[in-house]
Amino acid sequence: MDDVKIVLPESEMPSKWYNALPDLPTPLAPPLDPQTKKPVDPDQLAVIFPRAVIEQELSPERWIPIPQPVLDVYRLYRPTPLVRASRLEKALGVKCKIYYKNESVSPAGSHKPNTAIPQAYYNKQEGVKRIATETGAGQWGTALSFACSMFGMACTVYMVKVSYNQKPYRKMLINAYGGEIFASPSEMTRTGRAMLEKDPDCAGSLGLAISEAVEDAATHDDTKYSLGSVLNHVLLHQTICGLETEKQLAMAGDKPDYLVGCVGGGSNFAGLILPFLPRKLAGENIRMVAVEPKACPTLTRGQFRYDYGDVARLTPLLKMHTLGHSFMPAPIHAGGLRYHGDAPILCNLVDEGLIDAEAYYQTDCFDAAKLFLQTEGFLPAPETSHAIKGAIETAKKAKPGETVVFLYSGHGMLDLASYDAYMSGKLTNFDYPEENIVEALKDCPVIG
Amino acid sequence: MDDVKIVLPESEMPSKWYNALPDLPTPLAPPLDPQTKKPVDPDQLAVIFPRAVIEQELSPERWIPIPQPVLDVYRLYRPTPLVRASRLEKALGVKCKIYYKNESVSPAGSHKPNTAIPQAYYNKQEGVKRIATETGAGQWGTALSFACSMFGMACTVYMVKVSYNQKPYRKMLINAYGGEIFASPSEMTRTGRAMLEKDPDCAGSLGLAISEAVEDAATHDDTKYSLGSVLNHVLLHQTICGLETEKQLAMAGDKPDYLVGCVGGGSNFAGLILPFLPRKLAGENIRMVAVEPKACPTLTRGQFRYDYGDVARLTPLLKMHTLGHSFMPAPIHAGGLRYHGDAPILCNLVDEGLIDAEAYYQTDCFDAAKLFLQTEGFLPAPETSHAIKGAIETAKKAKPGETVVFLYSGHGMLDLASYDAYMSGKLTNFDYPEENIVEALKDCPVIG
Repeated sequence: MDDVKIVLPESEMPSKWYNALPDLPTPLAPPLDPQTKKPVDPDQLAVIFPRAVIEQELSPERWIPIPQPVLDVYRLYRPTPLVRASRLEKALGVKCKIYYKNESVSPAGSHKPNTAIPQAYYNKQEGVKRIATETGAGQWGTALSFACSMFGMACTVYMVKVSYNQKPYRKMLINAYGGEIFASPSEMTRTGRAMLEKDPDCAGSLGLAISEAVEDAATHDDTKYSLGSVLNHVLLHQTICGLETEKQLAMAGDKPDYLVGCVGGGSNFAGLILPFLPRKLAGENIRMVAVEPKACPTLTRGQFRYDYGDVARLTPLLKMHTLGHSFMPAPIHAGGLRYHGDAPILCNLVDEGLIDAEAYYQTDCFDAAKLFLQTEGFLPAPETSHAIKGAIETAKKAKPGETVVFLYSGHGMLDLASYDAYMSGKLTNFDYPEENIVEALKDCPVIG
Repeated sequence: MDDVKIVLPESEMPSKWYNALPDLPTPLAPPLDPQTKKPVDPDQLAVIFPRAVIEQELSPERWIPIPQPVLDVYRLYRPTPLVRASRLEKALGVKCKIYYKNESVSPAGSHKPNTAIPQAYYNKQEGVKRIATETGAGQWGTALSFACSMFGMACTVYMVKVSYNQKPYRKMLINAYGGEIFASPSEMTRTGRAMLEKDPDCAGSLGLAISEAVEDAATHDDTKYSLGSVLNHVLLHQTICGLETEKQLAMAGDKPDYLVGCVGGGSNFAGLILPFLPRKLAGENIRMVAVEPKACPTLTRGQFRYDYGDVARLTPLLKMHTLGHSFMPAPIHAGGLRYHGDAPILCNLVDEGLIDAEAYYQTDCFDAAKLFLQTEGFLPAPETSHAIKGAIETAKKAKPGETVVFLYSGHGMLDLASYDAYMSGKLTNFDYPEENIVEALKDCPVIG
């Protein structure tokens, strides 16, 4: 009988990350300084990022060694299992194989620690005492506070106030790891105080929380800033998912025909697919399917152009599929997928026609999550439910014997209120009117 | 470098449970009919339990095969990892080895599915359509609703009302698995209605919830009852934990000097230690340490005598260490450890001097959990924190090179409110006054 879980021995855990930058068919458009519209000088970034991370962001090297102390923490939960979802296949009546790469087994419950751990490590190496970051739904803040606790560092999380109030368990978990957390806008920063003065009841936004975390880092010598998605070095760290998957499929005697993942900023999906890019470019028929919510259809309906990463226009300009940095996605439960842009590396590949993108309504994704729960037993995060929906639709179209692999990015133990809303029929589906997107895109800078 | 996680291949997963009954140095005292005080006739139990389970409860066979459909569901999460807690060892400065058997990786987040799955299966085999049960903190109700969903059965959970209101996520998770859940006392049973008539604001108790679930099963032809701890068949199913541990220690070239676990009804601890009983009886120096809360010190301060399993005196009389069935433990956060009695098999072994018992205050257990979280990364359930505290104290006394293994029974993702109370200094420690125990024991029946 075939194994349900393909378990990679610890000795086989990858010791290098794969950097896709040198393999992109078209070179990546550089990040631009928001003032001068010229490529960003790496030295400018050193105020908020450690040198090692900046080097990785721009590195031309295809393979980057994973430091031993990072491997040591990875080994608390890695290698993660690749699981054959036989019971789901049976329920669907499909003749293809479905596997899922289970990143929910990390201490923080998602793939996010894969980059939080090296980011904490590199900061520690360079004498940084504290890392500041923002978090929306809370997954990233949890992962970074976990990673900081592993290296004995302080961690400050600015959490969008509306989520801070809605999700008290996230705050408690971040506190348990020793992290401090503030509802954003907060009294801790000039930006926060100014906003509170203007509007004491301001519910906050991810853009505002980014501004607070960046200001905190820029104004304290011992503190740097950390981002949990979008940037090249984050995607680099996540490639350990795909590298392990490649070895595990080989152990099972399989090859991937379809790779599926959900996309918010794009790091979990990129982590799965990028290691397979060289094989695809060499002619292997591997289809890569990015799944996003119809309420935030960045890859399916956005424009590929330079835009700001945040509402407040503080970040460098990135060339990406965007719905406009002033776009306000509807309040869907997959909070991690509510981002107006996407990782530039992914957008580059979508533009090249190497990645397919699909968008689904949230109730259809919860239906898929429920089927997964009642067949495979595990409770997926709302973000992950999009990957499951995409995998199911892919499996229905796949030929007998083909292999569908999706990335199971996180569990839903702290998202049960979303399931309750779904089960009691309270969920609304959202399309986004074309005119709103057009309006938001008017704010985008016009480059070159 | 040694592996952090000792992973047993699926092909090595035990295919039989170990039944300790024939190996007990002193035969187990039989359960008695609460009316006649004579040994219970197995036929009486058939109203609420399936035949296969009743047979296992009394079986003289040392090895009992695990049915293939049960193995198929076990394989969704089993074998579970045995993990070397090197970072915890280092933080403690101990020279012994500490391992933990991680049962939190199951879909329900605890060891409970190990018995929920076979119980659901045996009921299904005998044509039962629905299983009724009670749950206190919610772990057991979650596990049974998960198991029922795997076999396409209905599940009804009576959850103690005070917990039902305090822990809304448990209810949502049980619903997500397709289970129905009622706050107990409920309008669904005669017992519940009678209680509500007397006291509409009754907060409920585990004893009352048991009564409702038993009545539900006894009054519906297609419905049986299921219990998540204490009884012999439950401990039997949990032995898969210890059987795997034995193989995993052998893989690592180690032998256990200390086996540690927390005890509520006793099923997780028994699951770990019972498979090592033959080796201990053969003279191997394996010390077995049962850890309980000082607020509910059943093994350390209870009397070994016949008592009822529930407040309402509906269950058979069991010979066990008891604080008296009318004993009301203080409201500690480890809800799963608040039981006046313990599994008869464990109590038998404690009485023989084969198991040591220790009791700790809850704040000391949370301190231990925090150290575990900040070294090993994972968030333990409050019940599990007692096992961690016991393992730490054991490790401090162990000789260099000795091996301490503890059972990590569940994660604490749905117990974050308890951590919040702990971190904000709101936790109280409870001793239980001797006179209260003496008073509660006056209610116990005097046998023979």
